[in-house]
Amino acid sequence: MDLTSKPQHVLDIASLSSEEINSFLELGEALKEVLKRPIPKVPTLRGRLVVLLFYEPSTRTRFSFDRAAKALSADTLTFSAKGSSIEKGESLLDTVKNLKAIGAELIVIRHPMEGAPHFIAKHINIPVVNAGDGTHEHPTQALLDLLTVKERLGDFSGIKVAILGDIKHSRVAKSDILAFQKMGAKVYVSGPAYLLPTPLEEEYFRIYPGGFKVCYDPKEAIRDADVVIALRVQKERHGKPLIPSFIEYQTFFGLTFKELELIKKGALLMHPGPINWGVELSPEVEQYPFQVILDQVENGVAIRMAILLKLLTDGKTYEVTH
Amino acid sequence: MDLTSKPQHVLDIASLSSEEINSFLELGEALKEVLKRPIPKVPTLRGRLVVLLFYEPSTRTRFSFDRAAKALSADTLTFSAKGSSIEKGESLLDTVKNLKAIGAELIVIRHPMEGAPHFIAKHINIPVVNAGDGTHEHPTQALLDLLTVKERLGDFSGIKVAILGDIKHSRVAKSDILAFQKMGAKVYVSGPAYLLPTPLEEEYFRIYPGGFKVCYDPKEAIRDADVVIALRVQKERHGKPLIPSFIEYQTFFGLTFKELELIKKGALLMHPGPINWGVELSPEVEQYPFQVILDQVENGVAIRMAILLKLLTDGKTYEVTH
Amino acid sequence: MDLTSKPQHVLDIASLSSEEINSFLELGEALKEVLKRPIPKVPTLRGRLVVLLFYEPSTRTRFSFDRAAKALSADTLTFSAKGSSIEKGESLLDTVKNLKAIGAELIVIRHPMEGAPHFIAKHINIPVVNAGDGTHEHPTQALLDLLTVKERLGDFSGIKVAILGDIKHSRVAKSDILAFQKMGAKVYVSGPAYLLPTPLEEEYFRIYPGGFKVCYDPKEAIRDADVVIALRVQKERHGKPLIPSFIEYQTFFGLTFKELELIKKGALLMHPGPINWGVELSPEVEQYPFQVILDQVENGVAIRMAILLKLLTDGKTYEVTH
Repeated sequence: MDLTSKPQHVLDIASLSSEEINSFLELGEALKEVLKRPIPKVPTLRGRLVVLLFYEPSTRTRFSFDRAAKALSADTLTFSAKGSSIEKGESLLDTVKNLKAIGAELIVIRHPMEGAPHFIAKHINIPVVNAGDGTHEHPTQALLDLLTVKERLGDFSGIKVAILGDIKHSRVAKSDILAFQKMGAKVYVSGPAYLLPTPLEEEYFRIYPGGFKVCYDPKEAIRDADVVIALRVQKERHGKPLIPSFIEYQTFFGLTFKELELIKKGALLMHPGPINWGVELSPEVEQYPFQVILDQVENGVAIRMAILLKLLTDGKTYEVTH
Repeated sequence: MDLTSKPQHVLDIASLSSEEINSFLELGEALKEVLKRPIPKVPTLRGRLVVLLFYEPSTRTRFSFDRAAKALSADTLTFSAKGSSIEKGESLLDTVKNLKAIGAELIVIRHPMEGAPHFIAKHINIPVVNAGDGTHEHPTQALLDLLTVKERLGDFSGIKVAILGDIKHSRVAKSDILAFQKMGAKVYVSGPAYLLPTPLEEEYFRIYPGGFKVCYDPKEAIRDADVVIALRVQKERHGKPLIPSFIEYQTFFGLTFKELELIKKGALLMHPGPINWGVELSPEVEQYPFQVILDQVENGVAIRMAILLKLLTDGKTYEVTH
Repeated sequence: MDLTSKPQHVLDIASLSSEEINSFLELGEALKEVLKRPIPKVPTLRGRLVVLLFYEPSTRTRFSFDRAAKALSADTLTFSAKGSSIEKGESLLDTVKNLKAIGAELIVIRHPMEGAPHFIAKHINIPVVNAGDGTHEHPTQALLDLLTVKERLGDFSGIKVAILGDIKHSRVAKSDILAFQKMGAKVYVSGPAYLLPTPLEEEYFRIYPGGFKVCYDPKEAIRDADVVIALRVQKERHGKPLIPSFIEYQTFFGLTFKELELIKKGALLMHPGPINWGVELSPEVEQYPFQVILDQVENGVAIRMAILLKLLTDGKTYEVTH
């Protein structure tokens, strides 16, 4: 496997080429084999130090990176905003410089401010991975979404991806919109009007003609889709009260079996989690046979292993079986 | 050592047979040897992932499981209710399903709601260990208590165990009441009247005729006991104000040297910790020669190693020396 | 390398001999080689359990110890005051006894109360390392400061060290004052008058005639210094409001390039971190060529490895290359 074209950081999907994306997917697929072994661990990154720097609460993403590091035998130190020097008012950059001096060889960062990972990547010469920055991007989520679709559908070219919900505040949506288009899919989004991209933003998100469309009618987005991604209603990100209310949201944009009749046979249903059952997804759709929500979580570990491995190794050929 | 009759989970003492209990005790005893080695670690569970899911504060139990996992070379991820997706309102079941998708092979759970471990065990096909569920049970504490008594007294048949304190709210008491009876001991409990089992509950707790007795006079419970277990006064579990007050509790139910004169020569004094010195135990009794409170803590690591090992291995013979 | 003269604990600089200090520095220097390897990890303390007991928030010190332990392959359990049995009111001594029963072989403790590490060291027979106790001492910080100066200046004898800031509340200052004198340097301190040692304290801090001086004029302390240590203004430790204010502090005691003109050519500028830029240090001095603040952090890992190794091994010769 060729790692020579590896990027220095994983900051956003916007700055990754389709070749780079593809090489993460291929390595991720190969690493899934490791996770299926009786002893799901390889010594590849033994003694290497990865710091998980989480300025926002997280379970699945933080644990996913931690597990990915452990499966490669790397050591991890987890830093959460509470109970740390941040309470003493240290700047983000000083914190990161100190972590590097302590021995960090790679920083995974989640931060409420858009661009925080880019800022530190500019000022420190170790790899930085964005685990979600404000409402900007969440590139590793998009990579695991791609891996999940690739596993099931084989190919991206010409497929239609529908993303439903709060597009405006969703870093997952933004990374997915760019990632699926870069791989050849077209992306339709829908949601409450005031949570959709403006016409100007629409231009930004359209990577190729016809690649991106904002739909005021959710049916237009869903119809004949190959992949439907329901987003989480993030009550913690926008001003209260939520307009529409949870009940209105469920009525107009929540997915039930009725809406799923509009999609293609065998089309995938995805969600980045955590799910508000009864809001964006009706509880019944957990039984939908092509719901792949936990596959996404599983693939998250493999894709993060691929990222850690690429960014921390010297670009030589990597043998998974060793 | 035969592991073929292992249970799938450790949810409560009520559902364990005396054979199963005994096999945990035997394996725990054998594993104490590992903990006494210069390098107290074996590679048995290398690369296996244990998740510690603590929805209530804990030091000794959480650290005990963590240390047990590390001594077997397993990896651990610790999840505490604060700073996690729980703040985003995810359901317990979704959390557990996600942890499994991330790679958890066994879940240790402490939860304020009675039955939470049973609920998740029913819906997920990996082993679940109850580390304390509300006021219901704390089975691993009972197993370590049994191991401590077995080490010192050799046998359980016919011995008298006295448990003093807030029986009503104590999950330790409930697991101990069942565990000691299942091994052949009889259990007498005493405490403030309003914190004792009702006559109906008394029936539930009595496993064999004469096996269980509620005593309104603590002297009746203590007299000629082979083992006395003082419970922690749990001010955080029942309504404030505490009736009786700490001072009243100490006067009527606290153990001093005077009360210990009633027990048999060589009888053991135990406490699940953390201790409110001067309330349930007078500071002087720390000097009582058959006080085995820290032995309990030490045995907790061995018994939890036995549990992890049994639930995670395939039931084949396990050689401790490898 | 001879480890036979090792101390039992590292509680404060006051109780360490210059020989003991020197042997930590020598071992720390040797261990820096381990940290520069492609796999910065040795198996020396495999399976040994170090508990990090932090009753105050900390990033760099806690991570530094954790990383040091991991680089020696020790296991760690980290205990922070929040989310633990401390909330149930357990005494410090009981907590420590329990940690030992769980398997702790060495305790690293940070505590807001002066003397807490000494107290537990007296009552428990495993090594205790003080990671900062109230306003008393922070001995491992002083050792890493010494290592940083030794690396750059080679020798301590006859050099002048200036420490600027809140001497009264700084455990770093107190450890540094004693440590540098013990190695043959003289120490001048300055700061706001009400944050300086009293004449009586001055006697205590003076280890040899002329070894220690309190300067009301910061210029007197800085002039011809070989090492300048700027302390953090600790707004969390003294009563609010801060007198002088941050702006007054910067005006009278903050270091800018102008003040650095008073020091010797090649003199070192140090700070224990985290830094309040614009208060004790002007942002421009980050460019000062002999600023060694991140070297201090890096040396912290090596010195803590040396401490763990000395206190946990049996005093035999230790080969770094194995």
